[in-house]
Amino acid sequence: MDKQNVRTLSLIVGCFTYLLVGAAVFDALESEYEVENNRTLTEKERSIQVKYNITSDDLELMRKNVVKLVPYKAGTQWKFAGAFYFALTVITTIGYGHSTPQTVGGKIFCMFYAISGIPLCLVMFQSVGERLNIFITYLLQHLKKCCRMKNTEVSQTNLLFITLNFSTLVLAAGAWAFSHYEGWQYIDSLYYCFITFATIGFGDFVALQKDNMLDKRADYVAFSLIFILFGLTVLSAAMNLLVLRFLTMNVVEAEQQLESASVPITSIRVDDGVIPTNGAVVMAAQEQPEYSDRISVCSCSCYNLRSGKFRRKSRSTNSKRTRKGGDKESRYISGGGGGKGFSKQQYETEERVTDLEESSSVAWKELCTLKRASI
Amino acid sequence: MDKQNVRTLSLIVGCFTYLLVGAAVFDALESEYEVENNRTLTEKERSIQVKYNITSDDLELMRKNVVKLVPYKAGTQWKFAGAFYFALTVITTIGYGHSTPQTVGGKIFCMFYAISGIPLCLVMFQSVGERLNIFITYLLQHLKKCCRMKNTEVSQTNLLFITLNFSTLVLAAGAWAFSHYEGWQYIDSLYYCFITFATIGFGDFVALQKDNMLDKRADYVAFSLIFILFGLTVLSAAMNLLVLRFLTMNVVEAEQQLESASVPITSIRVDDGVIPTNGAVVMAAQEQPEYSDRISVCSCSCYNLRSGKFRRKSRSTNSKRTRKGGDKESRYISGGGGGKGFSKQQYETEERVTDLEESSSVAWKELCTLKRASI
Repeated sequence: MDKQNVRTLSLIVGCFTYLLVGAAVFDALESEYEVENNRTLTEKERSIQVKYNITSDDLELMRKNVVKLVPYKAGTQWKFAGAFYFALTVITTIGYGHSTPQTVGGKIFCMFYAISGIPLCLVMFQSVGERLNIFITYLLQHLKKCCRMKNTEVSQTNLLFITLNFSTLVLAAGAWAFSHYEGWQYIDSLYYCFITFATIGFGDFVALQKDNMLDKRADYVAFSLIFILFGLTVLSAAMNLLVLRFLTMNVVEAEQQLESASVPITSIRVDDGVIPTNGAVVMAAQEQPEYSDRISVCSCSCYNLRSGKFRRKSRSTNSKRTRKGGDKESRYISGGGGGKGFSKQQYETEERVTDLEESSSVAWKELCTLKRASI
Repeated sequence: MDKQNVRTLSLIVGCFTYLLVGAAVFDALESEYEVENNRTLTEKERSIQVKYNITSDDLELMRKNVVKLVPYKAGTQWKFAGAFYFALTVITTIGYGHSTPQTVGGKIFCMFYAISGIPLCLVMFQSVGERLNIFITYLLQHLKKCCRMKNTEVSQTNLLFITLNFSTLVLAAGAWAFSHYEGWQYIDSLYYCFITFATIGFGDFVALQKDNMLDKRADYVAFSLIFILFGLTVLSAAMNLLVLRFLTMNVVEAEQQLESASVPITSIRVDDGVIPTNGAVVMAAQEQPEYSDRISVCSCSCYNLRSGKFRRKSRSTNSKRTRKGGDKESRYISGGGGGKGFSKQQYETEERVTDLEESSSVAWKELCTLKRASI
């Protein structure tokens, strides 16, 4: 069986194992409380039923009625602010379900609305997330310069550290704000923010569902919606970086495959990395701080092309690495001629080799960056 | 302002406009029914309250009680099967909210469980989705061969067409099955399947929440869970292809940028495409059916490397294209020497140029494929 199938199968097995472990822990944590809570609530219901001598049929009718009334008790759900809030939960896939379309037309429109809305929203978040990552990198570089640190480059680990801390800060601040406005306990508010930003959206805690806030508190509505969008951006940027980190093993494996299968020309070893003649250090790529590290999933190569910095840097790094590789290897790479009296034509050809090596190097480097991002 | 910022801003504006339009339509579709339904339900509640002379306080107490009792009325939620179902809704981010952790420990574990589970699940779905796409491509190629069609290659449009039809089929079949087992109307069942597969998961319709099914109907539980996982795979594969299709404009722009900024060596024109000396047809890439078209987001390049077919094809295509480009251009590309009496050293250098061109070509081609996928 080939490697890709093995990898997919391992992921399926891993996922199922994770589900089984999760199920066992949730069972252990919640089962006891469930039995107890069920008994207490049923007793309460029974006591009211007995107190007013309500028939079972009427109780059932009442039960259904109460459940259907829940969204309306929280306020008008489908006037503009509420409908906007609902539309947001659809295209972000949060889907609280605090209020759902009841008409057939509403349900059908909701499906078509999601088909285009979800991809649009995904692309938007990735794009904004990437801008945010670049902005954080920029700030971090300037901070390092201000502190007069020797190495001002920003590695993926730096970026991940900052983004995770920033996400935690946003979560904590959001939890405080919602706890203040909604009157929830802090842990519930934190749980609400997390479940929202991860787009799970259970709907057991939903903001703006008290005292007709959707109609009456325009400022809080605006704050909530903007905060949810901001939180989603920050957390999805962090999640992206986390996913990449998780995939390091696969990426290294893919890069090794790439090196052994795609580069027919001799490669040389320097320090702790392998350099094929395309110039990319394959083994050490994960650990070395690189300019490419600051580029996240979305439109990363465009950034390179626009700024041109990466290419210039890559060019100089390559030549430095080639020099590092020793004189003999260097001569091998630059054409095998060893600098012995070339004709003009030979020099032109040599120049083309160098140009091609650089072009190839840019391509391979961008390819590696994109590969890390693409899965 | 640079292009990337303009793009991000356009996406934000586009997303907000989409939300505003959605809100207006939902308002128009649902507002009237909301008012009417609210009135009917309130009247029913009022009539029961009057019939049994229930005090307002008791009614409020009863209301809260009924809402909390909803999950327990549907059956035991936190024994193993239910806990597994819940864990699945967490890591897939469906989050119906039909049953949610009530203990502080459960809430905290749920957050940590989601942090690792969601990326794992994302990677798994992408990996399985990619395998599915490759399997569909394989079947389609064999079908084309059986029908003795001249062009047996599978374009992205073919793949998108098949995957979308397959998704619709899975949705329709799932809707029929759930409609049968749960007793829902077909449109509700279709709406449930879509909302689930899109990971919105409102929770207004939730499978396995009737007659204690989670405990009693092991076969239906297994079917539901496997079907949800299968549907998520198929729909996420289709969504991936859809997102790529939506981004064609940006990708073409990025490729043009790439061509103008990164390839310092002369390019030639053939037929309807531009070939830089790295061998990739830039302008025609979108329209030409290519082997690379059958490769989806996940581990695409590894597939190329494993099969080796793409590289061989690319190599032969390049040489064919170079011949097409005319003798003069061909000579220019292969070193400018025009075949005039080379020394052994010159021939070796020439060979290295050809090797480098091919290596560069593979890199650029893979890069273009990955770029289409990465955004």
